[in-house]
Parts: sequence; structure tokens; C-alpha cells
Amino acid sequence: MALNDSALLAAAHRRQGDRLPIWFMRQAGRSLPEYRALRQGISMLDSCARPDLVTEITLQPVRRHAVDAAIFYSDIMVPLKAIGVDLEIVGGVGPVIAAPITRVADLDTLRPLEPADVGYVSEAVAAIVAELGDRPLIGFAGAPFTLASYLIEGGPSKDYAKTKSLMIAQPELWLDLCSRLADISAAFLTVQVQAGASAVQLFDSWAGSLSAADYAGFVQPHSAAVLRRVGELGVPRIHFGVGTSELLPLMGAAGADVVGVDWRLPLAEASRRIGPDFAVQGNLDPALLTAPWPVLAERVRDVIRSGAHAPGHIFNLGHGVPPTTDPDVLTRIVELVHTEGPEIRAEAGALADVTSGRA
Amino acid sequence: MALNDSALLAAAHRRQGDRLPIWFMRQAGRSLPEYRALRQGISMLDSCARPDLVTEITLQPVRRHAVDAAIFYSDIMVPLKAIGVDLEIVGGVGPVIAAPITRVADLDTLRPLEPADVGYVSEAVAAIVAELGDRPLIGFAGAPFTLASYLIEGGPSKDYAKTKSLMIAQPELWLDLCSRLADISAAFLTVQVQAGASAVQLFDSWAGSLSAADYAGFVQPHSAAVLRRVGELGVPRIHFGVGTSELLPLMGAAGADVVGVDWRLPLAEASRRIGPDFAVQGNLDPALLTAPWPVLAERVRDVIRSGAHAPGHIFNLGHGVPPTTDPDVLTRIVELVHTEGPEIRAEAGALADVTSGRA
Repeated sequence: MALNDSALLAAAHRRQGDRLPIWFMRQAGRSLPEYRALRQGISMLDSCARPDLVTEITLQPVRRHAVDAAIFYSDIMVPLKAIGVDLEIVGGVGPVIAAPITRVADLDTLRPLEPADVGYVSEAVAAIVAELGDRPLIGFAGAPFTLASYLIEGGPSKDYAKTKSLMIAQPELWLDLCSRLADISAAFLTVQVQAGASAVQLFDSWAGSLSAADYAGFVQPHSAAVLRRVGELGVPRIHFGVGTSELLPLMGAAGADVVGVDWRLPLAEASRRIGPDFAVQGNLDPALLTAPWPVLAERVRDVIRSGAHAPGHIFNLGHGVPPTTDPDVLTRIVELVHTEGPEIRAEAGALADVTSGRA
Repeated sequence: MALNDSALLAAAHRRQGDRLPIWFMRQAGRSLPEYRALRQGISMLDSCARPDLVTEITLQPVRRHAVDAAIFYSDIMVPLKAIGVDLEIVGGVGPVIAAPITRVADLDTLRPLEPADVGYVSEAVAAIVAELGDRPLIGFAGAPFTLASYLIEGGPSKDYAKTKSLMIAQPELWLDLCSRLADISAAFLTVQVQAGASAVQLFDSWAGSLSAADYAGFVQPHSAAVLRRVGELGVPRIHFGVGTSELLPLMGAAGADVVGVDWRLPLAEASRRIGPDFAVQGNLDPALLTAPWPVLAERVRDVIRSGAHAPGHIFNLGHGVPPTTDPDVLTRIVELVHTEGPEIRAEAGALADVTSGRA
């Protein structure tokens, strides 16, 4: 089977075949004991800069769960670290920035990302792709708003008060900051695609904290700049944020091929909002991964049924795998999606055809 | 002016007069230096059980900001503490439950709340109402889902995994738990209304973590039970949660008179979804309170304009006042809402009449 015929890429292009593709956000990393063993004594950012570790960590969940794609193991702060921003990832906290951005002069550190800054990324991608064969590797980057929120807040935030305040009070500074971040993000994804990634996912994890009007005015143009540049490389683009029920059409229109949906909205309704030109990805509630299997399995089937109403569906969670997840549960979900998926989709899709008069 | 002619109660009954009423969620408490001075060396739960402190803390923001209502100073865990649940409020963390609920036997501690359990509440309400005169006091309680989430998780949670898992895996236990919590919540509000509160707000702070289907199936009936019992007392009921754009019509239908809206959805659109039988409350983004005044003032005006399209509008934030808020900013917002509100509403409303053909 050629890579371009893979279930994931076909679904992303809305040419879904018999197989329902599945992967998990955060499948590479914290939920796997073999990952925790590898990371012993190695910081997050150091691990992201070692091609041998990145390769192994990216491949671990593919081997274990037989998912339909690998997601490049990295951190959204990696390209910023690579251009010299003083930051670290603190365990149990998240990214911590030494000198948060408050004024124009602070932008000087945000120079363009050159491929040579992240040679270890190209090297790791090449090694991963060689191992994966006909299974696609999804490239990974953070979107400008989410990156900006860390740079302005100095770390994770509950309410993004400094970010939003700067955004509306200093629009020129915001524009300059996000333009730089869009360039960096696009360059980081370009490196991954040129080294062999055959799709990308742009994470705007915290965009859901914004109203649609603020998203449209201050955020979407910058995400669109990233997605446009990646689109020129000819790979499908997945775009995701959490709590984005009201933003989904805008996130699609930003230039995605696939819109990731969290668990709050059924995929059928999400697809109706986003429109027929987009595949959807999602959206099992990760909070349900601890539920007893029969109950959980029924929720997996619900997601498959709802996704059958979209023009393309990539099964995923509605957010990242929680660190405490029993990995065997993920393996079981993959098996269910692969064995029961086609039939459930066929039944649900036939029903949808009847209801919509397409039969 | 009689209490029933107050701007807040009139708006709640969709008989809005000239004045646009305003209050702030969390106006009583952490943002005020006079509150922090009073609380020195006194724990949160102890402060809630002292009528002198509760009275003073409830009145502080009314004096300072000239808001149109007081909100009863309490904590959503107070009624649970009052019936003997072993819990404390840990600074910087939130409620911590000694023995989280996992099975039917754990429900034995959740006995009905009797007025005598919270005599200090009746006493404080009476003292507050005597001071307030023609300004209404809003009673305060947590909704069953949010209370259940603390009891099951043992404290605050990011993803409510245990709560959701119990909810779908042990529906009988969930039903029993939420029925008890609905009784407790209704009894707690009844005590406040019978002592003189002339409206209530039921907080389902974390309901926005649920899909509409799960909310409708597992949560709405229990909130409805609370709101029905309070409705029998003849006071208007405000119902609020954060991140609930997709749940607003269900929250209204649960038996609210006023639906609180967070900042993610313009009030006009929220009102369109909820329908003409409900007033709305909200929805300035609290993250913007640190923005420079001219920018913030324009956002306040936007909220007033959008709220003019609803059949009743109580101005508020879209979530609680952040602890770091400069209280002078809140005072200034109240002044703006009172001085400019009527004119902005008249202009926006006239425009709405033209657009909708009602002119």
C-alpha cells in the first residue's frame, strides 16, 4: 500500500475508504511506561532535541496500539527554544518563560526559525518515516495564539488575562508578535514535512478561551498564514483546539483540511457547522477512558456513528491522552474502531442518506 | 422605591426599566482589600459561619461599587459542611474532601439539610437585608453536578474524569447522589429566600465540561428540581455556568428566569438560542479587567449593546471577579453602565427593532 492510500490521508482528503483511521493526541509520551522509562533523568526539552529518543518515543505508541499514524514527539515550545527564547518545561506546571513579552523591544528575540536551528528534528523525522513505511507521520506545531499566550503570561494561565489585554490594548504589538510566531510555526512544520511528514496538526490549544469575534479579528489571520504556507507543501492540515464549538467554522476557514473537535459537540453537528469541505477528527471524551469497558465501548461506537455523517472522519480523543490512562484501554479502542468501525459507519451512513434524501 | 421595582428584579422578570442593573459574580470577597483585612487568620469556611462577617463581607462591594444587588457571601460547599461532610477549603487549591464518594454506602453522610443546620445563614441574610433596603440580595448555591464533581473527585479537577465515569457507569448511584444534592441545594436556597433574599443564583460552574446530551440526560433534571422548588417561593432564579454556549437553552429550560452567559457568546446570540422567555446576565470577559480603561470601556459598551437584544439584561462579568482585580475598575464599570447604559440600550434596541421589522 502506498503512503497516499493510507486510511488517514484518504479520510483527510474526504476520500474515506473501508478503514476508519485512528490515532490519539498525546499518544506519544506520558501515558506509556516505556516512555517514562526512556525519559528517566532527561528533561522534556532535552528529550525533544535528541533524534534517537524522539524517534523511539514517536514509534512506541504505533507499535503498541497499531494506530494509523504517528504524531511527531515534540513540544510546542521547541521552535521557540531553538531560536534562543529562554524557557524551560517544568514538570507538573508546563512551559515557564524567563522574560515574558510586554513591549515591542521584547520581540527582538523572536527571529525567524532556520532549518539549521532544528537539525535534530529533520534527522528524527527521517528516521521515523523510514521505520513507519506506509503509515503517515503527522507533523506537530503550536498555533500563534497559543504560543503567544505562553510568551505573554510567562507560563500556563487560567484566564489569559495578560494575553487578551495585550491583544486588544496593543494591537500593533500583537500583530507583530503573531506574525513572527506564524513564521516560526510555519517554518517548524515545513522542516517536518520536507523531512518526510505527510500531514500536519496545528494545535491552537487555548483558542477556545476567546469569543468568535476576537478569534476572527485577532487570531484566525495568523493561523491562516501558517496553514497557507503548509498547504503549499501539498500535505493535509489538521487544526485543533479545545472548547472551540463556537469557533469550528472559523478554524476550518483558516485553511484546514480536517478540523479537530473536542467532546462537547457531536461530530455530526460539528460537521454541519464546519461545512461539507472539511473532514473532522475526534472526539471521544478523554475523561471517559477510566469508565468500565462496556460503557466506554458504547461511547466509542457513538463517536463512530456521529462521524459517519461527516465527509471524512479520523477517530481521536477530544483532547490529549491523560497521563494516568491505562494504555491497554487505548489499544482496545483501536481494535474496536478497526473491527467494528466500517460496519457501524455503513449503517449510520445509510441511515444518514435516508434522512437527508440522498438514498 | 419598593424592592420589587428594583432594576435587577424588573430585568429578571423581563420588565426592564430605564436603569440597566449590574452586579459582579465574586464581588464579595477576594478582590477587596477590606475583605482581605477582615479574613486575616480566619478560614474560608469559618468566615461563612459567622453572621457578622458574612453580613459585612456581603455589604462591602455594595457600598464600594454601588452595584444593584448584593450576592450572599458563602461557598458552594457550605451546605455540605453544615450536614457534616468532612471537607475544607484550602487556599490556592479549593475544596478538599476527606472521603470522596465512590459507592452507595458513601451517600449516607448526605442527609437532608435542615434550616437549623445553617442558622447563621438565616441570621446573616436577615441582617444584610435590613441594611440593603430597596436593593435586592441574591441567594447563592451550587448546582448538583458541580457539587457532585467535588464530592467525587475529592477536590478541583481539570477533566472531571471520576465524575463522568461514575455518572455513565453507575447511573443509579449518580441519580441517588444528585437527588440528595438537589434537595440540599434547594433547602439551602430556601433558607436564604425565607430569611429575605429576593432572587437566587444557582451556580453550575463546571457543567460546561459536558456535552449537551450528557447534560440533558444526567444533569439538567437535578438542576431543574432545585429551580422548581425555589420557583415555588416566587423569587427569580438566575442559572449560570462557564463554557456553556452549547447548553444555554437546556439551562434555561431547567427552570431559570435568567440565564447567565460567559464571554464566549455575544448576549444577542445567547438570547436568540435561549428564547424570548428568558432574561440574560453577563458577560464581560473578566480577563479584560486589566486592559486600559478606554479599551475596556468600549468592551463594556459592546456588552450593553448586545444585551439590548435580549428581553431582559442584567450586566455582569462572564465569570467571577479575578482575585487580582483592581476594585476601582469595577466601580468605574458600574458608573459607566449606570450613566451610559440607558442611552446605549435605547440606540441598540431601536436598531434591533428596525432590523427585526418590529419598528
